[in-house]
Amino acid sequence: MAKESEKPFSVTLDLDKCEIFGGFVKKLSATTLSKLIDFVYDRDRAKEILKSGEDPLIYEVIGFETPKVEGNLSAAITILNPGKIGHEYYMTKGHFHEKENTSEIYICLSGRGFLLMQNKKGEVDVQEMARGRVIYVPPGWAHRAINIGSTKLIFLAIYPSDAGHDYGAIKERGFKKIVIERDGKPSIEDNPRWRD
Amino acid sequence: MAKESEKPFSVTLDLDKCEIFGGFVKKLSATTLSKLIDFVYDRDRAKEILKSGEDPLIYEVIGFETPKVEGNLSAAITILNPGKIGHEYYMTKGHFHEKENTSEIYICLSGRGFLLMQNKKGEVDVQEMARGRVIYVPPGWAHRAINIGSTKLIFLAIYPSDAGHDYGAIKERGFKKIVIERDGKPSIEDNPRWRD
Repeated sequence: MAKESEKPFSVTLDLDKCEIFGGFVKKLSATTLSKLIDFVYDRDRAKEILKSGEDPLIYEVIGFETPKVEGNLSAAITILNPGKIGHEYYMTKGHFHEKENTSEIYICLSGRGFLLMQNKKGEVDVQEMARGRVIYVPPGWAHRAINIGSTKLIFLAIYPSDAGHDYGAIKERGFKKIVIERDGKPSIEDNPRWRD
Repeated sequence: MAKESEKPFSVTLDLDKCEIFGGFVKKLSATTLSKLIDFVYDRDRAKEILKSGEDPLIYEVIGFETPKVEGNLSAAITILNPGKIGHEYYMTKGHFHEKENTSEIYICLSGRGFLLMQNKKGEVDVQEMARGRVIYVPPGWAHRAINIGSTKLIFLAIYPSDAGHDYGAIKERGFKKIVIERDGKPSIEDNPRWRD
């Protein structure tokens, strides 16, 4: 249960520069290629990049997280860089919520992308991301953002503070679909690594 | 519990024009003075306005509400017109959540205002609203938005779909504070109608 003693607070989200700051805002995570490698399709290509001494930053998450107890909400922006690993666009790892019966709302602030979602029955859904798109991720749907543009894909996520991240299933099995560049355009294709 | 069958969806929030549309978006409520009268300080003035045949629109709520079951989130913008009833600025009724252990996140998109909050212990908190302010309303805090500017105050709220609205306590006792214009400026003052 949330503590009665919790106090209201506010932070600033610059809706034009797409930056969040003030108050309890901090960098919550930074994911470089070496942390993403088990989630990408072309791991040989990823290894080549890493061997060259580079470990490019793929995405950062910046925001506030209230205590991880039932009833609280948190808010954070993700800044997902443009780029590709082989033919596959930069993306977030993607995760289910540990606490299954929790949803999430994404508000895209900048850039172009897809939000790839999949539930435990294997149903897949893809929503386009562009400034002003508000996407509802219902309970039970894993979600991964993919940057298909040439600029940063930036979005705000609002989620229950106790939702948690379950990366295991995605690391193990991936999503059914991957998003790659084919003939110069983004293409949503079957993931050859997918295992039912 | 949320239904497994729920599907992801998206809507559009124009972050510049501050409009929300598409998909499941609909007008959720429209509050005119006659519906707000039990919440305002100067009810004699409100009655005078209503007697003149006017029943001005104070605010509208437009957005999507997913099924009112645990685990779901909803999102809606409130468009709160500028204006005053006597010396008191136009405001929302203000409410506690029926389900006490639920919080809410406000994102101000346009205009100038205050978010007045109060918990059941009688503690009061006021956060400024301006484009880009993100305000956390912790569980157990009643909240009322007040438009202190000369343009529409528009904000997005994200809340658990089963949070519910409890207007009773506010209708009965009000908030400890009211926001009125004094010497041409907004002033947060003790509410003479407040009863402990």
